[in-house]
Amino acid sequence: MDLVKRSLKHIWNPCSQMKDYEQFPLLVIKSAKGSYVELENGQKLIDGISSWWCHSLGHGHPRLKAALLAQMEKFEHVIFADTTFEAIVKLSEKLANLTKTLKHVSFASDGSCAVEIAMKMSLHARYILGEHQRCKFMALENSYHGETGLALSVSDMGRFRAPYEASILPQAFLKGVPYVSSTDDPLWHDCSAVWPALEAQLNPHAATLTAFLVEPIVQGSAGMMIYSQDFLKRLRQWTKANNIHLIADEIMTGIGRTGLPLAFQYADIEPDFMCLSKGLTSGFLPFSVTLTTDAIYELFYDDYATGKTFFHSHTHSGNALGASVALACLEVMEQENIYTQVQDNALFLKNLMQELMDETGQLINLRHLGAIVAVDLVNPQNIPRLGHRVFQEALKRGAILRPLGNTLYWLPPLNIERDTLLDLQKITKAAIVAARV
Amino acid sequence: MDLVKRSLKHIWNPCSQMKDYEQFPLLVIKSAKGSYVELENGQKLIDGISSWWCHSLGHGHPRLKAALLAQMEKFEHVIFADTTFEAIVKLSEKLANLTKTLKHVSFASDGSCAVEIAMKMSLHARYILGEHQRCKFMALENSYHGETGLALSVSDMGRFRAPYEASILPQAFLKGVPYVSSTDDPLWHDCSAVWPALEAQLNPHAATLTAFLVEPIVQGSAGMMIYSQDFLKRLRQWTKANNIHLIADEIMTGIGRTGLPLAFQYADIEPDFMCLSKGLTSGFLPFSVTLTTDAIYELFYDDYATGKTFFHSHTHSGNALGASVALACLEVMEQENIYTQVQDNALFLKNLMQELMDETGQLINLRHLGAIVAVDLVNPQNIPRLGHRVFQEALKRGAILRPLGNTLYWLPPLNIERDTLLDLQKITKAAIVAARV
Repeated sequence: MDLVKRSLKHIWNPCSQMKDYEQFPLLVIKSAKGSYVELENGQKLIDGISSWWCHSLGHGHPRLKAALLAQMEKFEHVIFADTTFEAIVKLSEKLANLTKTLKHVSFASDGSCAVEIAMKMSLHARYILGEHQRCKFMALENSYHGETGLALSVSDMGRFRAPYEASILPQAFLKGVPYVSSTDDPLWHDCSAVWPALEAQLNPHAATLTAFLVEPIVQGSAGMMIYSQDFLKRLRQWTKANNIHLIADEIMTGIGRTGLPLAFQYADIEPDFMCLSKGLTSGFLPFSVTLTTDAIYELFYDDYATGKTFFHSHTHSGNALGASVALACLEVMEQENIYTQVQDNALFLKNLMQELMDETGQLINLRHLGAIVAVDLVNPQNIPRLGHRVFQEALKRGAILRPLGNTLYWLPPLNIERDTLLDLQKITKAAIVAARV
Repeated sequence: MDLVKRSLKHIWNPCSQMKDYEQFPLLVIKSAKGSYVELENGQKLIDGISSWWCHSLGHGHPRLKAALLAQMEKFEHVIFADTTFEAIVKLSEKLANLTKTLKHVSFASDGSCAVEIAMKMSLHARYILGEHQRCKFMALENSYHGETGLALSVSDMGRFRAPYEASILPQAFLKGVPYVSSTDDPLWHDCSAVWPALEAQLNPHAATLTAFLVEPIVQGSAGMMIYSQDFLKRLRQWTKANNIHLIADEIMTGIGRTGLPLAFQYADIEPDFMCLSKGLTSGFLPFSVTLTTDAIYELFYDDYATGKTFFHSHTHSGNALGASVALACLEVMEQENIYTQVQDNALFLKNLMQELMDETGQLINLRHLGAIVAVDLVNPQNIPRLGHRVFQEALKRGAILRPLGNTLYWLPPLNIERDTLLDLQKITKAAIVAARV
């Protein structure tokens, strides 16, 4: 039996209607390098979405491979309660240097779990302080923070939630987020006109929230929605004024995706908690961190008998292979000037999409920041699953796009070549045209 | 600054009161091989608990390293929606061969997430079937299924839950589990005397449960509590008779820990869902799977427009490094006859602990199965944190034990040498004596 049939017999792929693969055969991956994935049939595909936004330095970066190998010669993983080791100390120092205030790092494996750790630390801090009324969370409309229980409760995504609604804690979502098209949008700099209405929505929750969660500046799963930095600044002020923690979920945006190390730096703020994952290992292996402040850390720091231990235990917390790759990844980001490269390429990337809009006349709502650019497909004939059709047509032509509904976006490796972006543009254009036929 | 100080400045270790490390310095790991961990100061420690129960083939197994290397030369991870590859197909076939009925495999990174996937698939199945009243879960008293939101809701562990109680959905727990000391215990074979009382507790929940969760046969975090296989058999019959799914969390017990590939095989049953992690990669890297039946899979298999897609998406689902190591791990389990080795060593391991009980007079409640043996420390003088003191004394003498409260246990690599077990016994004995001084 061929590999695709054998795969379908036993594997349930993530985020997939398996029946789709009756029409649209699974891709059999042979290898991947840089911005390209190669199939068993020899076809090469540009990874236009960095494999779900994680391969920020592309596939198989030689320095990351070398770091993993060197660590594996020592050890791959030792229980991380009561232990430490060189690579993870160096990594933690680099992570602590990203901000002025987030100096304490906890380790887990995936982004959802990193968010849950932040949420649980926030709740636990209230428990220690006796602020028992502060047991609720609030997040932005269209937010996505993961799909385990607590993280899903603060994700405002109907299709991810609907079947489980009876088992999800009710949380509040802030409506009317001031979305922008780019940093040139007047709202980006000043959202004072809409802020009073937003504050009026927030104030009734001021006494019961333990934390507010944001994907800073860019909401990924919502369809690469970009919002005003001035809004984030005001929201941060409001949380501070009301003794509410701010949790920044930088899982997609962190480590350079938006052109700065962290997206919340556009608003010149710092949160109480920050979560990183995806790009932190350039997608090599699952690895995530939650950072917090001295103030939070010190609340838990006491004699064992006082019962303030944060017991959350995670078998692979501090996995040494992950830590070593993450350390190498941060080193490459600095030494190969990747942050600068993202800033330098941002306009180039945006202009490529602008050209596509102009040439096809089938795209609207261009928005962009750093190495993210997105548009929506117009669909006057109501072609079913138009985004999915574009995806399939692009695969035939050599690129992985996987639109979010009818939102088409590029989120390529940060170090992608400009020639590859030009190819990505050509393939995307041809796919848009073909999808309507 | 030395590495320990640098570590404490920035790292928040899991499941740890960080203030403890003022008295008890962090261990600096240099390397690990087989059943031993080596510290920077040259000291070698027997990993008596397989680094939180995951290193089932010890540290740095050469075949697992080779598998990881070979895969990394191809690719480390490509988005697993719409794709497949050779190693993961082979792995899935091996996983599907473990049972008669669990033929469909989903992939995630950690155990907690694997449990949440099973819980969400169960809820989602009810949603598709229109069985909306079935939205509750039930688990055994003293259960542990992880610490993300949904998994924590079915974990009956006070200290892991208390600070978050207002944010945890209320679920029911079955009390009066018929615990046993070993397979020689009469209750192991026949729990008919206690079953009616248990069934009377279960019946009021028969119409509202979507699933019942168990750690099959051995509850790890509760302190290695072993229960009657006859009870599990009866519980399985009850769930079947009442249209309730059974979720088997084999994260600690699966892949040989108890002497069989899966612990629920002692009861000659099969569940509707099974979760594996820890030993599946011998602790190399985070990797987990959730398996289910044709019946569940087929409920979700339909045209996209019918809205039955299981959307749970996980960036590192199907990570190729993890899949390759897991495949190698299952091959080694078979080819090196590890299951037989566990069975052959079980009595040897139990006798070592029995000798310790007899010699020290300070241990009670011996229980054992496969490569798990546990006792409780008697503590008539109420010495504070006696288990923790034994842990520290054992570290000085060359072994990692990390008792669960006052439960002392060995859960060594499955392929540990008998001489190493003899050393572990000596060290444990000396540590017990020293902890009382």
